[in-house]
Amino acid sequence: MPIEILVGVDAGATKTEAIAIGVDGTYIGSGRSGPSNPASVGVEISCINICESIVSSIRGRRAEEITLIGIGLAGWAGGVWDRDLISCISNRIGVSRDSISIAEDIDVAHYSAFLGGEGVVAILGTGSNFLGKAGGRVIRVGGLGHILGDEGSGWRIGLLGLQMVFKSIDGRIGPTTLVTKAYKHYRVDSHKELLRIIYSSKDIKSLIASFASEVFQAAKEGDKTAIEILRQEAREIALAYRAIVENIGSQMLAIVGSTYKM
Amino acid sequence: MPIEILVGVDAGATKTEAIAIGVDGTYIGSGRSGPSNPASVGVEISCINICESIVSSIRGRRAEEITLIGIGLAGWAGGVWDRDLISCISNRIGVSRDSISIAEDIDVAHYSAFLGGEGVVAILGTGSNFLGKAGGRVIRVGGLGHILGDEGSGWRIGLLGLQMVFKSIDGRIGPTTLVTKAYKHYRVDSHKELLRIIYSSKDIKSLIASFASEVFQAAKEGDKTAIEILRQEAREIALAYRAIVENIGSQMLAIVGSTYKM
Repeated sequence: MPIEILVGVDAGATKTEAIAIGVDGTYIGSGRSGPSNPASVGVEISCINICESIVSSIRGRRAEEITLIGIGLAGWAGGVWDRDLISCISNRIGVSRDSISIAEDIDVAHYSAFLGGEGVVAILGTGSNFLGKAGGRVIRVGGLGHILGDEGSGWRIGLLGLQMVFKSIDGRIGPTTLVTKAYKHYRVDSHKELLRIIYSSKDIKSLIASFASEVFQAAKEGDKTAIEILRQEAREIALAYRAIVENIGSQMLAIVGSTYKM
Repeated sequence: MPIEILVGVDAGATKTEAIAIGVDGTYIGSGRSGPSNPASVGVEISCINICESIVSSIRGRRAEEITLIGIGLAGWAGGVWDRDLISCISNRIGVSRDSISIAEDIDVAHYSAFLGGEGVVAILGTGSNFLGKAGGRVIRVGGLGHILGDEGSGWRIGLLGLQMVFKSIDGRIGPTTLVTKAYKHYRVDSHKELLRIIYSSKDIKSLIASFASEVFQAAKEGDKTAIEILRQEAREIALAYRAIVENIGSQMLAIVGSTYKM
């Protein structure tokens, strides 16, 4: 009899990653696909990318063998999309609805860092979000999305970098190596072309967040504008962390997400 | 024989205003409608709102009597929408294509301020844009839209105000009167409802820019957070102005737009 399969899915604003293990703990495989934050790409695309990552992770095994799919979802928004996403995933890959479970990505991140214990977790990916738990208290800070928040995230660092690129081009600030990096990164020859690419993008969050790595690189090479952006966003991260620590006492901090690894 | 009519249209990101005069200079009427920046609402809505403002401005007179329609368009983007907009307006209200002329809003604003002479004009409306002309030189600064620029605009002031609202709610900054102003302004009882309204808006630019007036009001009442936002955006305006003045020499400054009147 085949081993039943458990699948964990990290459904993010830029990419989706799934990992499949047997109920006995044996590693089966992992899968990867495009963005699946329903707040930015919609339920349909979110479902397609989650399913693609799951199917890829089980390495040709049948979906009927899956006992449980646990999804940590970015843009969870209080579960407003849960029912539609569960139906869509169930129909698309042929697993029962009861075996699909969705939680907010920050809750999953907290559990993975502290295994149910006390501490503060920060997700610094395309977006940003902060959650602290201690002594029965749960404090959330940030997690407000790319328009109203996402301080310290790849989106915010990439965005500030690009704003500085245009300020440098029209003479509001001095030269910065971010300009040549932006032209190279987006493969353009003019700032008008760069503007057009950004404003016509169907996935502007990923497109802009992808520039964060160039800001980190420029800072490492000593570019003052890039260093100032990273300092500012580090202050934002500290501000969120302090707001939680002052409330719950616990100072244990775990940072996860792609931006933190840059 | 009826007097032939000239119509001027200010086609902006939040509202559209038209004014009609006879070729002899007599005032005929004015009209007003919704947003018509094609970069934010698309050509179709832009056309509908421009036409509505024109028809309203001529006070029941026939469109065939119009000799010329001059449109100053926000989000002009090098004229990429000119042909489609002219066709649509021509078909919709029955004026010949040849009698419709479109220019960038900042060019129209410069002309209206300096009548072809030297100077620097700043549009501070929903968005922001800066243009200086002197001694045959033309310098543009800003005008990069709500994602990459619009420093000093209603959008930016409203956005920073709302970001501070959420920072105050989750304890990252201290109290600010902007919180109660935001709840009242958007008629909500919770920050979750406020989040939902903003992220589900089909015209997020106008929705957020409308909060700028509350930031001005809070600043007048002494709110430190609001005052700091206005100081920061005033510095941005000064930065843009300086970048132009250093290039063209002329220091004549004209400021137009709804945000400047707050």
